[in-house]
Amino acid sequence: MQVEIWTDINCPFCYLGKKRFNDALAQFADAAAVQVTHRSFELDPTSPLGESGDVVEHIAKKYGRTLEQAAEGERQLGAAANEAGLEYITSGRDGGNSFDMHRLLQWAAGFGRQEEMLDALYLANFADEKPLFGSDDRLVEVAVAAGFDEAAVRDVVADKTRFADDVRRDEAQAQEFGVQGVPFYVFDRKYAVSGAQPVELFTQALNQAWDARPVAPQVLNADGDACGPDGCAVPQA
Amino acid sequence: MQVEIWTDINCPFCYLGKKRFNDALAQFADAAAVQVTHRSFELDPTSPLGESGDVVEHIAKKYGRTLEQAAEGERQLGAAANEAGLEYITSGRDGGNSFDMHRLLQWAAGFGRQEEMLDALYLANFADEKPLFGSDDRLVEVAVAAGFDEAAVRDVVADKTRFADDVRRDEAQAQEFGVQGVPFYVFDRKYAVSGAQPVELFTQALNQAWDARPVAPQVLNADGDACGPDGCAVPQA
Repeated sequence: MQVEIWTDINCPFCYLGKKRFNDALAQFADAAAVQVTHRSFELDPTSPLGESGDVVEHIAKKYGRTLEQAAEGERQLGAAANEAGLEYITSGRDGGNSFDMHRLLQWAAGFGRQEEMLDALYLANFADEKPLFGSDDRLVEVAVAAGFDEAAVRDVVADKTRFADDVRRDEAQAQEFGVQGVPFYVFDRKYAVSGAQPVELFTQALNQAWDARPVAPQVLNADGDACGPDGCAVPQA
Repeated sequence: MQVEIWTDINCPFCYLGKKRFNDALAQFADAAAVQVTHRSFELDPTSPLGESGDVVEHIAKKYGRTLEQAAEGERQLGAAANEAGLEYITSGRDGGNSFDMHRLLQWAAGFGRQEEMLDALYLANFADEKPLFGSDDRLVEVAVAAGFDEAAVRDVVADKTRFADDVRRDEAQAQEFGVQGVPFYVFDRKYAVSGAQPVELFTQALNQAWDARPVAPQVLNADGDACGPDGCAVPQA
């Protein structure tokens, strides 16, 4: 079974949702047969590259709230994260353009280490006071600390074209699915769950999707020339 | 739309089917929205590593045919390949264990160059008299000639554990789908086509799968805390 999770590094509920989904998956009997892929979604693709901004100030300005209201929002997010067993710094957190991070995630997916990269980025954003956004060097530092090869990471970060098409393909797919916010979970392209649901709801969704999984696709044409363990059929001339 | 094609390098009909499928795809109006992934299938996983054997002799021995019968089979396969516009050497071709080739294909898929790798391997097997199987150096040579980085390829070829799990996962999926032979084409895990069908049949399958493609998955739970372009909902404590 395939689970695709659209996510953004800037998204606290994606960080929280990942923990809750993983908790559900850890208890799921057929977890070994579940393939999870994280898909790219930018909450603010217009956010300028190379810049880092304080999250509380940004939220207050963008949504017309007072600084105290914005700070209270972060504290509530922090409390929810702590309750799920996650670290969360409730002040001094930064935000910014996440395109390069999505490119890194696409790159790491190619050799089976996407989840490690995502965890490193989430922790750097939500649990580390050091700014994360707007600096290629910081991004490289975070990835290298997570065990990725420095030269390879630097190459990907520096060449803004690499894996850019993969990010845009994911975003186009989200648009086709009508995704309005993240996290957004899609099971075998058949069922979807929106938002950081409680663990029990993810468990329900996993069970429902598992029961409905296609055991085998419908064979439209079965009589083509093929090779099997007993050799290749020779075409009839 | 996702198309997965189970294939083996040892499989003449996979080589032929790839050409016919690609011819159908080239004429398909929505080809840009079709994502093709080649999946691993070993026709003979028990074939010993590090060995190369003449295909005609192998077929004659394995299936109890005369050498002339086996050679005639290769000539007929060659004629069908030529008719599809493909080169094919009808004598002197070798075969053997393809596990390392599948690992290379899995590796190349990670950075969007799987098709280039597959084409290089097919041509080396079906259109080049130089033996392909049983030699790490020959495998590196073929990949490097196709434009892949020599050190990176050599690393993958040398470390037999790399991408081995991905190969086995594909093979387990094929088994779950009941695949008896290759090529085997699966469209959005909904429809399947078996064998090197004529171009027109691939066109029909593409159209049928396209019309049935899921525009959006069914949303089971939509009210979870999520972040969107208008900010993150604050959880109700």
